[in-house]
Amino acid sequence: MDEGFASYNDVGMNGSMKMMDFLEEAAPGVGTYEDFNTIDWVREKSRDRDRHREIASKSKESMCALLRSVSDAFSGWLLMLLIGLMAGALAGLIDISAHWMTDLKEGVCLIGFWFNREHCCWISSDTTYEDRNNCSEWRSWSQLVIGQTEGAFPYIFNYFIYVLWAVMFSLLAVSLVRWFAPYACGSGIPEIKTILSGFIIRGYLGKWTLIIKTVTLVLAVSSGLSLGKEGPLVHVACCCGNILCHLFTKYRKNEAKRREVLSAAAAAGVSVAFGAPIGGVLFSLEEVSYYFPLKTLWRSFFAALVAAFTLRSINPFGNSRLVLFYVEFHTPWHLLELIPFILLGMFGGLWGAFFIRANIAWCRRRKTTKLGKYPVLEVLLVTAITAVLAFPNEYTRISTSELISELFNDCGPLDESKLCDYVTVTNATNSTNENQILDKSVGPGVYTAMWQLFLALILKVFITVFTFGMKVPSGLFIPSMAVGAIVGRLLGVGIELLAYYNRDWSIFKDWCSQGTDCITPGLYAMVGAAACLGGVTRMTVSLVVIMFELTGGLEYIVPLMAAAMTSKWVADAIGREGIYDAHIRLNGYPFLEAKEEFSHKTLAMDVMRPRRNDPVLAVLIQDSMTVEQVEAIIAETPYSGYPVVVSQASQRLIGFVLRRDLVISIERARKKQDGVVSASSIYFTEHSPSLPPTSPPSLKLRSIMDLSPFTVTDQTPMEIVVDIFRKLGLRQCLVTHNARLLGIITKKDVLKHIAQMANQDPDSILFN
Amino acid sequence: MDEGFASYNDVGMNGSMKMMDFLEEAAPGVGTYEDFNTIDWVREKSRDRDRHREIASKSKESMCALLRSVSDAFSGWLLMLLIGLMAGALAGLIDISAHWMTDLKEGVCLIGFWFNREHCCWISSDTTYEDRNNCSEWRSWSQLVIGQTEGAFPYIFNYFIYVLWAVMFSLLAVSLVRWFAPYACGSGIPEIKTILSGFIIRGYLGKWTLIIKTVTLVLAVSSGLSLGKEGPLVHVACCCGNILCHLFTKYRKNEAKRREVLSAAAAAGVSVAFGAPIGGVLFSLEEVSYYFPLKTLWRSFFAALVAAFTLRSINPFGNSRLVLFYVEFHTPWHLLELIPFILLGMFGGLWGAFFIRANIAWCRRRKTTKLGKYPVLEVLLVTAITAVLAFPNEYTRISTSELISELFNDCGPLDESKLCDYVTVTNATNSTNENQILDKSVGPGVYTAMWQLFLALILKVFITVFTFGMKVPSGLFIPSMAVGAIVGRLLGVGIELLAYYNRDWSIFKDWCSQGTDCITPGLYAMVGAAACLGGVTRMTVSLVVIMFELTGGLEYIVPLMAAAMTSKWVADAIGREGIYDAHIRLNGYPFLEAKEEFSHKTLAMDVMRPRRNDPVLAVLIQDSMTVEQVEAIIAETPYSGYPVVVSQASQRLIGFVLRRDLVISIERARKKQDGVVSASSIYFTEHSPSLPPTSPPSLKLRSIMDLSPFTVTDQTPMEIVVDIFRKLGLRQCLVTHNARLLGIITKKDVLKHIAQMANQDPDSILFN
Repeated sequence: MDEGFASYNDVGMNGSMKMMDFLEEAAPGVGTYEDFNTIDWVREKSRDRDRHREIASKSKESMCALLRSVSDAFSGWLLMLLIGLMAGALAGLIDISAHWMTDLKEGVCLIGFWFNREHCCWISSDTTYEDRNNCSEWRSWSQLVIGQTEGAFPYIFNYFIYVLWAVMFSLLAVSLVRWFAPYACGSGIPEIKTILSGFIIRGYLGKWTLIIKTVTLVLAVSSGLSLGKEGPLVHVACCCGNILCHLFTKYRKNEAKRREVLSAAAAAGVSVAFGAPIGGVLFSLEEVSYYFPLKTLWRSFFAALVAAFTLRSINPFGNSRLVLFYVEFHTPWHLLELIPFILLGMFGGLWGAFFIRANIAWCRRRKTTKLGKYPVLEVLLVTAITAVLAFPNEYTRISTSELISELFNDCGPLDESKLCDYVTVTNATNSTNENQILDKSVGPGVYTAMWQLFLALILKVFITVFTFGMKVPSGLFIPSMAVGAIVGRLLGVGIELLAYYNRDWSIFKDWCSQGTDCITPGLYAMVGAAACLGGVTRMTVSLVVIMFELTGGLEYIVPLMAAAMTSKWVADAIGREGIYDAHIRLNGYPFLEAKEEFSHKTLAMDVMRPRRNDPVLAVLIQDSMTVEQVEAIIAETPYSGYPVVVSQASQRLIGFVLRRDLVISIERARKKQDGVVSASSIYFTEHSPSLPPTSPPSLKLRSIMDLSPFTVTDQTPMEIVVDIFRKLGLRQCLVTHNARLLGIITKKDVLKHIAQMANQDPDSILFN
Repeated sequence: MDEGFASYNDVGMNGSMKMMDFLEEAAPGVGTYEDFNTIDWVREKSRDRDRHREIASKSKESMCALLRSVSDAFSGWLLMLLIGLMAGALAGLIDISAHWMTDLKEGVCLIGFWFNREHCCWISSDTTYEDRNNCSEWRSWSQLVIGQTEGAFPYIFNYFIYVLWAVMFSLLAVSLVRWFAPYACGSGIPEIKTILSGFIIRGYLGKWTLIIKTVTLVLAVSSGLSLGKEGPLVHVACCCGNILCHLFTKYRKNEAKRREVLSAAAAAGVSVAFGAPIGGVLFSLEEVSYYFPLKTLWRSFFAALVAAFTLRSINPFGNSRLVLFYVEFHTPWHLLELIPFILLGMFGGLWGAFFIRANIAWCRRRKTTKLGKYPVLEVLLVTAITAVLAFPNEYTRISTSELISELFNDCGPLDESKLCDYVTVTNATNSTNENQILDKSVGPGVYTAMWQLFLALILKVFITVFTFGMKVPSGLFIPSMAVGAIVGRLLGVGIELLAYYNRDWSIFKDWCSQGTDCITPGLYAMVGAAACLGGVTRMTVSLVVIMFELTGGLEYIVPLMAAAMTSKWVADAIGREGIYDAHIRLNGYPFLEAKEEFSHKTLAMDVMRPRRNDPVLAVLIQDSMTVEQVEAIIAETPYSGYPVVVSQASQRLIGFVLRRDLVISIERARKKQDGVVSASSIYFTEHSPSLPPTSPPSLKLRSIMDLSPFTVTDQTPMEIVVDIFRKLGLRQCLVTHNARLLGIITKKDVLKHIAQMANQDPDSILFN
């Protein structure tokens, strides 16, 4: 639990001998960060360049150093390869286990209990392909225990066992999370976004989180809760990335470089979640990452590809596809169908906005009321309710990704699913010999399926609101997609019926003259899924590309794009934030959104501290303060850093010192450096000031001072200040007027100001 | 010719009444840029935000203003739609015309001279599909004029006509370029990169350039020169974008917003060039764009899709594909094949590096010697040589994209091409009834084709070096791909033969047991093409995605990626610059590369001006200078801007004034404002300084002063300064020491410093 990011400190200790090469006089701990703090991107990148220069200049000296330089250059690629392999392998493991455990709720395989239903029937091979879910070797629990399959009692028995397994799985999951890795809950994407933007949460990407999240994710998915494994897979991949970083000094020691790796790992995570390497890279670029140089783009792509190929070679679904719901459509779409697609987009937007509001309200309630004190009970209750309501309906009994797969499916002539229950009749009017056109009318199975799907929709819509945010790993890609897919399929079948019964309408005449094959309800399901996912997450390009990679046809991009665009516009009109940003704000993380432009006409002087009536800014004078005075300032003020000026009167800025570095350096000097006492003077200048000969030895702290602090004038518009913070990744910026130091703006001040201007509570920003 | 970017100035004049709302007291011309100058991104973005705020605040007042606000918000999408439509339509026009004119060199259609050969034969429909290039209605020139087809004389006659047409086309092309639009030559991508980074080249994207480039591109492609239309299509699309910007005030008046549109237009250009919308967006992101906010990503994608669909509905190739060389492969690749793929990557890298060196050396020669004085003669000579050498070889006689299409082709059983001349024999050892395995041996046609391809390779390799950079529109995607495709196909056939004759080798045993179908020479051609294109342009992700969109199979990404990666590494080891960057440097454009990290340990004080022995920095004093004094400073110094300080003694910085704004304001005040004479005092403070009552009226210029100039300390490492310039898009930055103004660093200084540190000639940076 104290692994992962935590070890930065230890490394600082152990690696201090090496670090001495680069940062002269650096005390151990100088240049590291505390937990729940923001890194300084500029400093981290500078450190990496120093390190790089060091290696490059040494490489000319000896063969060994040259080899080290080459291996250093290639370590990034090696790391990507390892991340891809590990993420792909873990994803395969999770897929296979979840598949098996989901089936375990309903029955067991006689050949070996470790086979899932499909595999079991495939091995026993006494059935045809279509019948693959009903074979003699697979026994439902009632069959196995009480030897009956038909009738009310076996049904109730199976029902009971189903709920029991579900509750057991979720109990195990929530207990593991609670005891071993509290960070393993949720989807993890809001936190990863925050970490990538430069925040430090130690242990969030550590090995315990990885192990527990992997195990509990399988349990949570298998328990039948309305959640998906896609979001948590991103977290798992990022954990892999972070852990593998420890193998390479370059990435272990540098927070900025490590975040490059994590961006690539996130891409690998999405790549295996959806079988979409390009979509994964774009997701990382669009949604998750903060600092994404082009070098990272190429490496992310490599990691995403390796991960996808690893998963493919594991072949968890036995169809040599990476996801359960890969689809191929055969019928082109008609231009008029854009109207239902846009309607689906509007539904997606509305649902997204509703979901975000309801979920955030519920999560806030959980945070502020007694409810949050009983996470285990909450999980058990929700699981029990879900299982009890889900079992009677065959579309909720199966796993959500199987449901999506069935909804996306383009009905073929051999499909036995109820959704494909079409009655084929020879069309009498057209029965010429040459072109025997068959007509398909909708059978009773489709009507039953419609009702069941409608009930499934209502269950999913409500239960997901309560599920997302519980103390188990939970993603919401899959539930959102399921909601959209159900609505899409319903609409698709509706339009199909409309076209079938009104074939003489002019719009259907030339389009649907040859039976009902003109409309593909599976495509509607897919478009609906994209719309709902877009409404919840506000993804755009990455969403369309992920869906494109699922279908593989450029042709279907236009419907997907129309739906995604409408969905985003509708949802944005109701509330600007996507679900991840809403959760970031709920948790008070210091995340500076790169997408939103700051549009208010305030100036730096309105934001900086000290405010008008505050005491003046605490500054250090470059050459006339004693250790005691400095310590007094540190004790009196809570600031994380202090500007250094030439003199109190001139307020000419010369540098900036971080509190942490200052405290560590003074402590160390008092211990190690002879004669440094409270009366010793501290100086930040190049040469020591002339002191009376009786004074104690003075302490030079120039090395810990940042000689190039960022400054803006008090007249600088805040939009420019926000831009600077965002693009350069600053922690703080000093404010001057006519070149006199006036105040300071920290990242927290910027975030608070943005919250205030958006009429939100500025005190919701908790961390610095 | 003076259109496009040029009209910024005129707009400033005509639109000054409106601008008065936003920038109080702004004289006409203040806030505009001169030709061959760099824009200030921060200022442009601020102006756009001001405009946006204005509209947003007004929108609450009336219904009309609300409508204007909504239409303003949607104008970006409308613009993208228009760009997509226009780019797609132009690409279709170019494709169709070039196809027709290329065929015109060999013959004419009797049904109508405006049909190309394929279309002609398709209409006459007296032939089967395979024979579509030889039908009775299509007459070669010898057939038509002298009534003979066989024998030496008709061959020579056709040869002569072929060369004649080629020379005529290129003469027309070069003349049009020379007389009407000199900016229409070349590929345009280096200039577009520079323009997108914030440089102004008036007329480069104007309507004359568009018209002439479109026409001459068709002529140049048809003339048979070794060039492609893909790069110029990006230029054409950008011209469309720039011209359509004039329809919307928001984009017409703001250089930063306009560049967002141009980025999207570039994506649309690549989208139609390769039929790859996602690849186009990534190309724009990776290769061309400088400022690419996420909003642009989504819009670019939209524009790219619209363009692709427009082109598809035009269907220029009659195969409902967007490109001539769309491919589908059927055989999977073997892991061992990665070795030849990596070899192809190495070849691509070597060729790329060789090409860049040779081409740049030749272009430099053209610039510096007499050669550059005779562009028409040069073009005619190169065309004549190309045509004379190309005609006898059927692989060079056809257009380069047809050649690529043939090389990529996966031989089917019905293919009649020489490359597919396989002799099918029944394999006696395996002739069981159940599984009749056919064996294919290589026929004589393949050997002939190999020789011809080898000769074609030599021609392409050398002639392309001289072609790229001539005064006709010329892209090098297609020639590079052709070189790679030839080498790839040769290697592929070689390996196929190796496998065929050594089927008992252990590596081929289980892999190639069933005939030679185990190796797809077309895939080798594709990998080779990707490798060579990668070596020349140093594209990475976008290259792989473009190729992925050409094949549509995720399976072939790994070979492509392996080749692209090897190619980039090999090429980068020889020379860091891609062809576009090399041409940017050759032309001395001020382009600050975003990909390369600046890695030298210099400080801001090493780069700033004035240097140690220079005269002191020219500054303005905030309230104690007269018009005369200021005019003297302007006359004496060539700087494009002046810092304003509190007093000469303190050197406390308060702002920065641009030379252009200062000149315009003083001129205007002298004309319009009563009593402003040479002795009038100028002040930049909020309130006028107290002056003796006899003094002439003073001139307040605070409104043209930038109150928030960027400053860094003299100790700031240059790597951070470069980062700031790059990320914020600065034109200049002031340097201070202990808060006293010391000097200034302009973008030109930064570029010169980078050139110097890279041991290049710093004086090659020509513009500011």
